[in-house]
Amino acid sequence: MGVEERRQQLIGVALDLFSRRSPDEVSIDEIATAAGISRPLVYHYFPGKLSLYEAALKRASEDLAARFAEPHEGPLGARLLRVMCRYFDFVDEHGPGFAALMRGGPAVSADGIGTKAHVSTTNALIDSVRQAAYEQILAHLGVLDASPRLELVVRSWISLAESTALLWLDGRRVPRAELELQLVHDFAALVAVSAAYDADMATLLKQMVKDEPADGTFAELVGRLIALAP
Amino acid sequence: MGVEERRQQLIGVALDLFSRRSPDEVSIDEIATAAGISRPLVYHYFPGKLSLYEAALKRASEDLAARFAEPHEGPLGARLLRVMCRYFDFVDEHGPGFAALMRGGPAVSADGIGTKAHVSTTNALIDSVRQAAYEQILAHLGVLDASPRLELVVRSWISLAESTALLWLDGRRVPRAELELQLVHDFAALVAVSAAYDADMATLLKQMVKDEPADGTFAELVGRLIALAP
Repeated sequence: MGVEERRQQLIGVALDLFSRRSPDEVSIDEIATAAGISRPLVYHYFPGKLSLYEAALKRASEDLAARFAEPHEGPLGARLLRVMCRYFDFVDEHGPGFAALMRGGPAVSADGIGTKAHVSTTNALIDSVRQAAYEQILAHLGVLDASPRLELVVRSWISLAESTALLWLDGRRVPRAELELQLVHDFAALVAVSAAYDADMATLLKQMVKDEPADGTFAELVGRLIALAP
Repeated sequence: MGVEERRQQLIGVALDLFSRRSPDEVSIDEIATAAGISRPLVYHYFPGKLSLYEAALKRASEDLAARFAEPHEGPLGARLLRVMCRYFDFVDEHGPGFAALMRGGPAVSADGIGTKAHVSTTNALIDSVRQAAYEQILAHLGVLDASPRLELVVRSWISLAESTALLWLDGRRVPRAELELQLVHDFAALVAVSAAYDADMATLLKQMVKDEPADGTFAELVGRLIALAP
């Protein structure tokens, strides 16, 4: 194997291990065994577990960001639902690693100690994924320059999606399909709450729902909410 | 001053400095100067900046948790709004320190390097505040044993409140009073979305709004949303 090929193989093996258990619990020896090479050879390609972890995290970030890509066709509710489904696929595949990362743990405790530079790298990767998600949503809304209120709604919804996924991972006591739909509805609900007090957000909300079909996910939510009213 | 009195004074001085600038930028020398004592004397009471930071964080956590306490009287919307107002007071008072903490930065980079034990301490303090918020909300809802769906709604809303506060700190481009009200409405909206698909949550929603006055915050939101409908 060439150098780059070997590096890519090691990243894949490490990402797989870091995804299945908390990265703290994964040793370089284990990665070497899984890759079928010696421990010194792993160190030949990566100076330590931290750099291998960063490389694996970078690959996972790119993978996740790619899953946000969704054609700009058809009802918005259905588009968001497909994205949420792929998001939960990702969370499902990388469960323990995702949870540890979001809790700020492995970033620091891989090898027992984390440097400031490493934390910056980790935060920058997480931010790049959040930024990709943010830009995708704005593109689907047809907005080039978001107002402070819209930016706040979209970014805080992204964090709601993260915390919902993390809570789901902890016991999986609610079916994930239900949460994927719930998050799509939460997005509409947060936009609606902001629209109730702001004219620009109200215009956006109207545009958001105007192409929704009568049997679409947003229409169903509204119907169900009306049915709940006394 | 007695030992405990001096420790408490140093914690107060440090918390004040850690709140006004990112904790990374605050030196032990500065804390010593602000406290009117020598640098070696600071080290006599606290082995290093990390331990002083932890003590300051503990005091801030207790302060924040105490602000969630709210008498169980009157409409729920008004109670939540008072809590959100005190929450934003706290965020306002401790802005840079709050932002740095939530980004996982200072926990690690105080002194350049953070230990695994320190990260655990920091995470445990953050978790204790979230848990206090969670229990307060359940108490206001009159729920002793939350279902997985209710737990998810309440805990994910708490994280929504955190991210909204962090986004607000970054430029303060939306008036905080608007966001305090928005978060109260977001809570009702997230409960409503969950209630649309779950009978137990629907029962809870009905109970939540049954004592709300016709001119209360929830009624106003519903009125405004109905006015938006085409």
